[in-house]
Amino acid sequence: MTTSPQPCAPTSLAEMPACVEATVASYITSRMPSVAAISPVVKHAANVLRDFTLQGGKRVRPTFAYLGWMGCLGLDFEQAAEHPEVGAVVSSVSSLEFLQACALIHDDIIDSSDTRRGNPTVHKRFSLSHAARNWNGHGETYGRSIAILVGDLALSWADDMFAEAGLPAETLARAWRPWRDMRTEVVCGQILDIHAEAVGDSTLETAHRVNRYKTAAYTVERPLHIGATLAGADTATIQALRTFGEHIGVAFQLRDDQLGVFGDPSVTGKPSGDDLREGKRTALIAHAFEQATDSQRTEIDAALGSPLTEEDVERIRTTIHATGAPEVIETTITHLVAEAEQALAAATISPAAREALAHMARVATERIK
Amino acid sequence: MTTSPQPCAPTSLAEMPACVEATVASYITSRMPSVAAISPVVKHAANVLRDFTLQGGKRVRPTFAYLGWMGCLGLDFEQAAEHPEVGAVVSSVSSLEFLQACALIHDDIIDSSDTRRGNPTVHKRFSLSHAARNWNGHGETYGRSIAILVGDLALSWADDMFAEAGLPAETLARAWRPWRDMRTEVVCGQILDIHAEAVGDSTLETAHRVNRYKTAAYTVERPLHIGATLAGADTATIQALRTFGEHIGVAFQLRDDQLGVFGDPSVTGKPSGDDLREGKRTALIAHAFEQATDSQRTEIDAALGSPLTEEDVERIRTTIHATGAPEVIETTITHLVAEAEQALAAATISPAAREALAHMARVATERIK
Repeated sequence: MTTSPQPCAPTSLAEMPACVEATVASYITSRMPSVAAISPVVKHAANVLRDFTLQGGKRVRPTFAYLGWMGCLGLDFEQAAEHPEVGAVVSSVSSLEFLQACALIHDDIIDSSDTRRGNPTVHKRFSLSHAARNWNGHGETYGRSIAILVGDLALSWADDMFAEAGLPAETLARAWRPWRDMRTEVVCGQILDIHAEAVGDSTLETAHRVNRYKTAAYTVERPLHIGATLAGADTATIQALRTFGEHIGVAFQLRDDQLGVFGDPSVTGKPSGDDLREGKRTALIAHAFEQATDSQRTEIDAALGSPLTEEDVERIRTTIHATGAPEVIETTITHLVAEAEQALAAATISPAAREALAHMARVATERIK
Repeated sequence: MTTSPQPCAPTSLAEMPACVEATVASYITSRMPSVAAISPVVKHAANVLRDFTLQGGKRVRPTFAYLGWMGCLGLDFEQAAEHPEVGAVVSSVSSLEFLQACALIHDDIIDSSDTRRGNPTVHKRFSLSHAARNWNGHGETYGRSIAILVGDLALSWADDMFAEAGLPAETLARAWRPWRDMRTEVVCGQILDIHAEAVGDSTLETAHRVNRYKTAAYTVERPLHIGATLAGADTATIQALRTFGEHIGVAFQLRDDQLGVFGDPSVTGKPSGDDLREGKRTALIAHAFEQATDSQRTEIDAALGSPLTEEDVERIRTTIHATGAPEVIETTITHLVAEAEQALAAATISPAAREALAHMARVATERIK
């Protein structure tokens, strides 16, 4: 009783996001009747999950996984789209979007974020409808409670969609290994991050560990690993792709850290200096602390997690610049990208996949403007 | 790369809980090295999950599932223990305990419960250690955040343990269907319950729907369904066991509702009248509202969810009694148990499984004292 593979198969990198979205939408449609049979109330909750999952995102995780599969089979996009297992593969990699939905919904509760991509977060959405109808109890508690459960539903559906994608049994069993490691890594990376913030751990080692598990493994390395495993790739190829993924994933997080402090709001879509106000203990901040004078360190430390004005943000930026930390991060990014490129060059994959991966690596890590 | 099946195989109903616990403990041990490699911080969190999962509970869900499997194969305990797939089956049904751990951890956040089985709940445990060390931020937020993630870890591990139990591929694919339906049902039943409380929905229909999905399907019906599917049972046998499970599951919840209002604290382990203070909208309360006079209804409605004294509780109990609702519930339980027994009699299963299921049904639903 597996989900029938979707007819959708991308014939170029550009088609990937729409194909993932169509596949996820079709999967949700297949689950809706049994949810609706329980109650209209839960049908509504599932529709909120549907909207949240489909409303935005670049679908990078399914794309990396798909490229891993296509590349390891030595195929280009056109050939991959003709492969007899393409439907099952697209389904299985698209399930990563449910995992991402769970991660974002639960993260937004943890961070008490009210908006995401310009829309109310899931917990906020439910607490607003509670308030609008003047229901019993606290709207905030209600919104949080429902959102915890909607996240749980997303996590369950991720595993369901992966398990029922229609892959041959031995392929599924093989791919479950990186799938399971990835799910544990992202949760553990997130636990580590919250703990580091609570204890005020601003060491570079912890920042790197969080980047490694919460971002790199989850966003690039394991998706590529899953895709390569779906293709039955050999150990050397898997290792090369994982090395590429780890380096690009960490570099991507470092770029994101730079943008979180120095980025142009019109490009990043986030208020200027947001990471400073949130008090994020990034690798950038760790380097700044390490290289700062005593007075600089005191100034940065006091600012982190405070409600800063635009002038405060500008002042702290200047101080962080003065420590030399941003240059160190740029050098590290350059170094990581070079290592990643080297690993990619050594991987036995199709030219089309290599080109697409190099493109994605560039987009994820390059300096904006 | 599946987990090697555990040597543990129960040779009687009484051995089942210890066997489940040993299997879960061994699974956690197998996951620990990769968690510990991420950081000691997450190793600690995984140990909290370990303690929580192993510290108590009657392991009814794995037991029902095991009995479904054993019964449908026509085996007694001794024969089942010799079956070549017993290790894989014990592993796969034991994974239900991780699902239960997630459900309890997230429920305790939702209900803001500080203790469970006499121990601090997971979120409370982390918020206490936060407070004791005077960390940054709010201890309550910290505890809740970590507990959301520990629940997510439990949910992931449930699916991992089920997927990697070592079942033949076609058996796993078949059993995934009730497994997936069960996970969606319990989350949806819980969403429905929270929504009903928020909107003040005290109708019998909603109470029954919540019992059906949050308790009956999750605790008895689907575990039996999974077990029967693991055995490759025919449709008629599966249907008979599901009917038995649904009726016993609902009857069990109704018994629990009676105990939550009228139970002896020394037997239930919960403070007397706890369900009244929590304002639970149970089937008992729904019946009471339906049959109450206007003044009785006003009195009960005002009491629900209030901080009641012992005398208040005694008074409300008398009023609920006077509506005749408890008798209706007793009649319903008797009726459900009779229907369940009839379904069980019609199921083609081994005498040993039939006897064990009848025993469990009795224990779950009979009047205490």
